[in-house]
Amino acid sequence: MNETVSDILAAHRSGTITPEQTIRRSYERIRAYGDPAVFITLRDEAEALAEARALTAEGPDGKPLFGVPVAIKDNIDVAGLPTTAACPAFSYMPKADATAVARLRAAGAIVIGKTNLDQFATGLVGVRSPYGVPRNPFNPELIPGGSSSGSAVAVAAGLVPIALGTDTAGSGRVPAGLNNIVGLKPSLGLIPTTGVLPACRTLDCVSVFALNSDDAFAVLGVISGQDENDPYSQARPLGSLGTPPTALRIAVPNDDGRHFFGDRQSEASFLTAIALLRNMGADIAEIDVSPLLEAARLLYEGPWVAERYAAVGDFIAQHSDETHPVTRGIILGGTKLSAVDAFRAFYRLAELRRAGQDLMSRYDALMVPTAPAAYTVAQLEADPVRLNSNLGTYTNFVNLLDLCGLAVPISFGADGTPYGVTFLARGGEDAALASLGRVVHAQTELPLGALGIKQAPLAHLPIAARPGEFTIAVVGAHLSGMPLNRELHDLNARFVEQTETAPDYRLYALSGTVPAKPGMLRVAQDEGVAIDLEIWAMSAESFGRFVASIPSPLGIGTIHLSDGRNVHGFLVEPEAIKGARDISEFGGWRAFVESQRATA
Amino acid sequence: MNETVSDILAAHRSGTITPEQTIRRSYERIRAYGDPAVFITLRDEAEALAEARALTAEGPDGKPLFGVPVAIKDNIDVAGLPTTAACPAFSYMPKADATAVARLRAAGAIVIGKTNLDQFATGLVGVRSPYGVPRNPFNPELIPGGSSSGSAVAVAAGLVPIALGTDTAGSGRVPAGLNNIVGLKPSLGLIPTTGVLPACRTLDCVSVFALNSDDAFAVLGVISGQDENDPYSQARPLGSLGTPPTALRIAVPNDDGRHFFGDRQSEASFLTAIALLRNMGADIAEIDVSPLLEAARLLYEGPWVAERYAAVGDFIAQHSDETHPVTRGIILGGTKLSAVDAFRAFYRLAELRRAGQDLMSRYDALMVPTAPAAYTVAQLEADPVRLNSNLGTYTNFVNLLDLCGLAVPISFGADGTPYGVTFLARGGEDAALASLGRVVHAQTELPLGALGIKQAPLAHLPIAARPGEFTIAVVGAHLSGMPLNRELHDLNARFVEQTETAPDYRLYALSGTVPAKPGMLRVAQDEGVAIDLEIWAMSAESFGRFVASIPSPLGIGTIHLSDGRNVHGFLVEPEAIKGARDISEFGGWRAFVESQRATA
Repeated sequence: MNETVSDILAAHRSGTITPEQTIRRSYERIRAYGDPAVFITLRDEAEALAEARALTAEGPDGKPLFGVPVAIKDNIDVAGLPTTAACPAFSYMPKADATAVARLRAAGAIVIGKTNLDQFATGLVGVRSPYGVPRNPFNPELIPGGSSSGSAVAVAAGLVPIALGTDTAGSGRVPAGLNNIVGLKPSLGLIPTTGVLPACRTLDCVSVFALNSDDAFAVLGVISGQDENDPYSQARPLGSLGTPPTALRIAVPNDDGRHFFGDRQSEASFLTAIALLRNMGADIAEIDVSPLLEAARLLYEGPWVAERYAAVGDFIAQHSDETHPVTRGIILGGTKLSAVDAFRAFYRLAELRRAGQDLMSRYDALMVPTAPAAYTVAQLEADPVRLNSNLGTYTNFVNLLDLCGLAVPISFGADGTPYGVTFLARGGEDAALASLGRVVHAQTELPLGALGIKQAPLAHLPIAARPGEFTIAVVGAHLSGMPLNRELHDLNARFVEQTETAPDYRLYALSGTVPAKPGMLRVAQDEGVAIDLEIWAMSAESFGRFVASIPSPLGIGTIHLSDGRNVHGFLVEPEAIKGARDISEFGGWRAFVESQRATA
Repeated sequence: MNETVSDILAAHRSGTITPEQTIRRSYERIRAYGDPAVFITLRDEAEALAEARALTAEGPDGKPLFGVPVAIKDNIDVAGLPTTAACPAFSYMPKADATAVARLRAAGAIVIGKTNLDQFATGLVGVRSPYGVPRNPFNPELIPGGSSSGSAVAVAAGLVPIALGTDTAGSGRVPAGLNNIVGLKPSLGLIPTTGVLPACRTLDCVSVFALNSDDAFAVLGVISGQDENDPYSQARPLGSLGTPPTALRIAVPNDDGRHFFGDRQSEASFLTAIALLRNMGADIAEIDVSPLLEAARLLYEGPWVAERYAAVGDFIAQHSDETHPVTRGIILGGTKLSAVDAFRAFYRLAELRRAGQDLMSRYDALMVPTAPAAYTVAQLEADPVRLNSNLGTYTNFVNLLDLCGLAVPISFGADGTPYGVTFLARGGEDAALASLGRVVHAQTELPLGALGIKQAPLAHLPIAARPGEFTIAVVGAHLSGMPLNRELHDLNARFVEQTETAPDYRLYALSGTVPAKPGMLRVAQDEGVAIDLEIWAMSAESFGRFVASIPSPLGIGTIHLSDGRNVHGFLVEPEAIKGARDISEFGGWRAFVESQRATA
């Protein structure tokens, strides 16, 4: 197998496969796929293999993407490979990697090449490029979707397990939907755009294509984080994967807000998605999405087209014959608006954003079709602007409203066309979306991309805290059934798991505490034992209240677990255990208490 | 006395003076001041007195401004009084109070009238109004400053103890500086602008004029808070007044950044302010303010003039003869810029904002002259645009960079001209600025406004945490000015006090931590020393997040203070200090760090 990032990493780490073998396999598959329109520039194979060997020599430590091949959309700089943005006349040779690429490489990923796109990332179709139309692996007549067409096809076809795209209006989601893969469109500012050719600089996001949600979120973890060279990058805490809420609240467009433009298969797929979510126990709320669709229209009818002009308009004006006619027409329209028009649109957007955020705050996610309809290349060539516009129905508003999104496969039509949905949430909730998306994707039981192989069972999550929750290890009177366990219930904490510390601790029965409590102290590595504990999870506020209620000489520090994880938990000040009875031999407070009861 | 809000409230609550008497006094003083240019519309006296009597009948409960007279700048709606924005042809009769006014009234304040302003709040001078020039109470030849001219004069002359202004480019600060009063320019979005005629809607702030900082901050507490009708309003926690950090870090412009346009008195006043801060123990850092001054120039040279056009441009274009020629000229210039120009300016501003926020993060406040020079009405009439522009040198950049500001009186020139400084900090730090400003103002020992009476001694602040807050003692890298102090600010924590532990602790310099951190351990009673610490307060949620972020081997336990109190704070696991340097002799981390710096 070894198709997903996690499988590839495990194989590289165990040594059953070398990074060199994996990189070689990518090139072999690219040759076998035989579509020159997927990559605009393929990196020299010998160079990539040499990098793989050098990486192997360094070893996997500190490299969460050790030897993983990646493809990069050709509007993102990779040092030494030209950036064309699908416009040969525009091409330049960057001296430095984009920040996202540099972070991938620092994590051990190996760049294979630069992928095709709708010229200047303007379009959702994948047909607006002089480098050809990347072939949709499910149906050569179907568009691949865009603008990140090559990156999506490269992942779906198994040429690389992950690829970077960009997403201003849906370019990281629509092609995911049309290729049966996951497209992660992060919150604004989460991944820096330094080294990315702007489309609309205030809205641009780097996006991640992967075969499943876990891979996409793992890559996000590697490349997110503020960058001093990108003033639009933000220090947004990413959080981690968790179990979705049991009482899941999912919003969907009501009847007035459902637009499939005659694509019955797409409509049926969306109903399948709703049924799947209901089956997971979700409460489905049909909502009015008209404020969102109004925001969507602002993107091309309002001043944001001027951002595209600010980015590449002067070039296009001077190279009329060398640019795609549809793209040229759209971008040159950006000069028509005044600054006064721009501010008036911003005011309306501010109102819509507030309304959108209020709306989204009531649900765990809004679920929309990723692309409302699937079109053929021939259809797009006949009606290039209107059909492209249709494709953006459920994507155009997302960045304007500061939402994050995750496109997930749902089903195939009878003719084999892939369809998917996108989960949307307020900016900053990327981890919650990934936590939901991974479970939904697993429930679909769809094969991975166009690889024809099953999804592996979902990986066990490190500590099953939900997004926004904090965990704490309790070792004494707060254990289940003990006198202070009630405090945890009063704070709406929930039990997560029972486990034990690393064998570096000693446990003492504190004297004179009511109720009786132990104190646990970390000692030198060969002087301690493993102590039983329970992990509980609660909200930040509950965690704060809980910690604030802890009396001297106890405190909250970091506890090392026997399996290498760390968790916050109870520790005692050493001054307080002078003269206290060392009860480490019991291996935990419960065993000690029971022994006392037995002897009493 | 009974001039300040706090004195008036105390008198009203104790019954020594009735709200009716206070309102009557306002009208008597307005007549005595005899300047028809201060108020554009004075409210009917009998109506105001009737409101005062009705209020008295209701009683003071739940009314933090019980019977306090207020004046409202005439670009802010008061139901039943016309809003003119100093343009008679523009006048309309609002049906509802602006949100800020409604909140004042709900708190028991009584509106006395609508004050004069530079037409459409465009100007920093107070002379651009068909309703005349409000007389500066210190010198009738001196401009009152603007655009909130009438509100500032009304407070300085004792006509009302508080007044609302607006501040887009400095309109809430410059007139405070020229009238020896306090001008509080809150963080963007803190006070809703619903019912305020926009100048630049993305930058507009409602501001507060008062005789001292405590009054201004009390009013801010009443009128701040998100408003669903203003999409630019933000849910920013306000915090509360506290003691400024002992190791106060104040930035001031370096020589290249000091502009007084030949006003020697202003220059001398700024040096007085620096000396005063030094005398308070502040560390004064002379910094390069050129990124801030570049942002300032963007305000009138960039697209924000188009916002003014979006607000009132169509009206001005249609009423050319009925608008002030200088104002008209500025605002009609707003049509010249394209949306492309606008976005290019936003990109530059985003860079400057990032640089400005980084700069400000290193100091407790940046201190600048409020107005770099004081001009006469005659000077302004001779050179209306250039001198106005000079006045905005230290104000124009503030809202663009999302800073908050507090203008505080400093000194009088030999000819009786008042001068002041403005303290600036990152958005959200309004409480920290007011905490600093109150102490600085007290140190000046200046009289209140133009009332010729002394400031009362500063009110005693409650030291304890407010309800719902949790306190934490920090001893190392989280101390004010240390590398991790920013984490506390990011969690909206507020400084409470500086104190020391009981003499039962030892402090160690942990090895290999980045940034360098100490560990503190409680030891036997005769083996320890007292260690300096700071106490900070924050919400339960922030406290939870803070504790959850603390890495091993540090933890949060209970710390015993020298005065017998207990507070939660940092402790270290004893296992981690083996081999660490015992630095207890320094009495605290700051003293140790400084000793290291001295020897380096």
